[in-house]
Amino acid sequence: MKKNHFFSKLLFIAFLVITLSNVYAQKINTVFHNADNLFLYGKTKPTATRYHRIDTATYNDLPNAVKKLLTHSAGMAVVFKTNSKSISAKWCVTNAKAANNLTPIAQKGLDLYIKTNGKWEFAGVGRPSNVCSEYNIVKNMDNGEKECMLFLPLYDELKSLEIGIDEGSTITSLDNPFRKRILIYGSSIVHGASAGRPGMAYPAILARKTGLYFMNLGISGNAKMEKAAARMVSEITADAFVLDCVPNPTPQQIKERAEYFVKTVREKHPKAPIILVQSIIREQGNFDLEVRERVKKQNEEITAAFNRLKAAGMKDIYLITAEKLLGNDGDSSTDGTHPNDLGFYRMAEELGPQITKILSSYNIH
Amino acid sequence: MKKNHFFSKLLFIAFLVITLSNVYAQKINTVFHNADNLFLYGKTKPTATRYHRIDTATYNDLPNAVKKLLTHSAGMAVVFKTNSKSISAKWCVTNAKAANNLTPIAQKGLDLYIKTNGKWEFAGVGRPSNVCSEYNIVKNMDNGEKECMLFLPLYDELKSLEIGIDEGSTITSLDNPFRKRILIYGSSIVHGASAGRPGMAYPAILARKTGLYFMNLGISGNAKMEKAAARMVSEITADAFVLDCVPNPTPQQIKERAEYFVKTVREKHPKAPIILVQSIIREQGNFDLEVRERVKKQNEEITAAFNRLKAAGMKDIYLITAEKLLGNDGDSSTDGTHPNDLGFYRMAEELGPQITKILSSYNIH
Repeated sequence: MKKNHFFSKLLFIAFLVITLSNVYAQKINTVFHNADNLFLYGKTKPTATRYHRIDTATYNDLPNAVKKLLTHSAGMAVVFKTNSKSISAKWCVTNAKAANNLTPIAQKGLDLYIKTNGKWEFAGVGRPSNVCSEYNIVKNMDNGEKECMLFLPLYDELKSLEIGIDEGSTITSLDNPFRKRILIYGSSIVHGASAGRPGMAYPAILARKTGLYFMNLGISGNAKMEKAAARMVSEITADAFVLDCVPNPTPQQIKERAEYFVKTVREKHPKAPIILVQSIIREQGNFDLEVRERVKKQNEEITAAFNRLKAAGMKDIYLITAEKLLGNDGDSSTDGTHPNDLGFYRMAEELGPQITKILSSYNIH
Repeated sequence: MKKNHFFSKLLFIAFLVITLSNVYAQKINTVFHNADNLFLYGKTKPTATRYHRIDTATYNDLPNAVKKLLTHSAGMAVVFKTNSKSISAKWCVTNAKAANNLTPIAQKGLDLYIKTNGKWEFAGVGRPSNVCSEYNIVKNMDNGEKECMLFLPLYDELKSLEIGIDEGSTITSLDNPFRKRILIYGSSIVHGASAGRPGMAYPAILARKTGLYFMNLGISGNAKMEKAAARMVSEITADAFVLDCVPNPTPQQIKERAEYFVKTVREKHPKAPIILVQSIIREQGNFDLEVRERVKKQNEEITAAFNRLKAAGMKDIYLITAEKLLGNDGDSSTDGTHPNDLGFYRMAEELGPQITKILSSYNIH
């Protein structure tokens, strides 16, 4: 029965090939882990709701618009280590309407960076679909250990987040990879409009480039330096303060509020450098003479307030002027007001060295 | 009755003041003009439906996806002159779903430039709200004559467009302000993903910077060099052809189709330079080894096809390589594939001089 023997051998080989190719092609399961246990970069202080930036219950006199905007997860990122070849996420935000000057990725999505040779390098985004989304951010990676940082939605409230990794791989929290603490209080521009993805808001670029812990307190359209906001900012533990809020208050409000605001911060932080930043030159003002004039007046008022503070003897305050922040080709914004990623890149290139130079003289580096 | 006389004088003055201040504060009405009579930059040839890029009825063998994408107004702009201090628009697109890697301004909105000292300068955007939108793009301008160029939605079909100007001011069409004709056939990147506003897609930047008439034949995800597409491209009147489609076909498709495609164009245009462009290095491939490998193979195949064409004696063909197109910091995309405005700026800075150098040697400048 030689023939029979041959066939059974053939059958066995066929069986082996099918089994092996099944094993090879087998879909690796994704296991989701709640991100609540991972280090959360960008927090100003602990909050009752994890992904809120400030517990506004403590600041009842803040305008409601400000309170709402502080529920956005702008500028925050979860930081972790994994040896998974693939990274996914499941997350929920609110049903807030899509902004017409933001990509949904920036407004409601996620943005992953992995450390390579000491540098945070872009790895992939989480594209939102609905209130709750699931997305494979990156796959087909090598199986080494990776230090990861996942930036959270800029313009929505993050309700929950889970990180998905390959079955059999591990995920652990990382210690805070950033040094010191620098608070940026500011307008929609600090908040992140109109970055294309969450990690392109300029405070996030500065953090990745410098290794410093920048806290994003951008409050879109509402960084108007109210007394309650001054108290809120002053009660944040920080080594330095950047106030990039000039685009929001009227020139008159700047005149009335800026000195009080700075003095309130100074009272609680006698030695911390406080850096004022003029408003970017809005590209809408290329032809709209009223917008151009308004920005000019805002910048005159913040300069005047700065000069009065200096004249009154306040030390450790600085003013960064606007003229070079966005370049001068008129192509740095999405809508004439909010920097696009070219604008944010230029802001980081221009503001970054000026800020870090000041901070260095305080041993903040 | 001296007293009476005084009061009637006072009354008269009060009346005058009220009348004059009413005149001063009077809202200037906006008058809308159909844009159908204005010069339309970016057209490849006349079409039955004004804002379609190609009459696909003529190319029935094109895939349906390609036909649909050619109804998008990507890369086109209406060009006009006005002395209005304010420019508005009313426009309608379809109810196509918002893309998650585009701003609604880029996908369905408008983007205005005004010529200043010979340069096209950004003036404002039209923010879409719904299927039909009305928006004041710019106001408070001086009352001089302005040469205007309004870029149309990148990723939707424009159904109608009206330009609004101040009552009493004028609007007239401009002659084509661009020289020569250069056709760019390409992927979603040529099509304009992920520009923040319509005028930031790289063919539009190149047009503004060089004064050359670039025609955008970006066909998102579907520039796969089919025979029907080769015929369509070859039948466009142009002085030069740029083929930036490598991201869409598989390496195998490039191997099978690229030479036929180029030869088909060459047959109809014996002397026109044909410039092949390698695929941008996708940032998703920073960590996704399969994406990295796929892009590498696509670029190897287009290079091999180029070399075979050269070896077979074809003249006037060029290959632009990818390595510098997006810089190397990994921050040039919105989603790992599609350039953000930093990416498009870099592409224009890198591709622009290489393309114009080639074109110059053919007296295309």
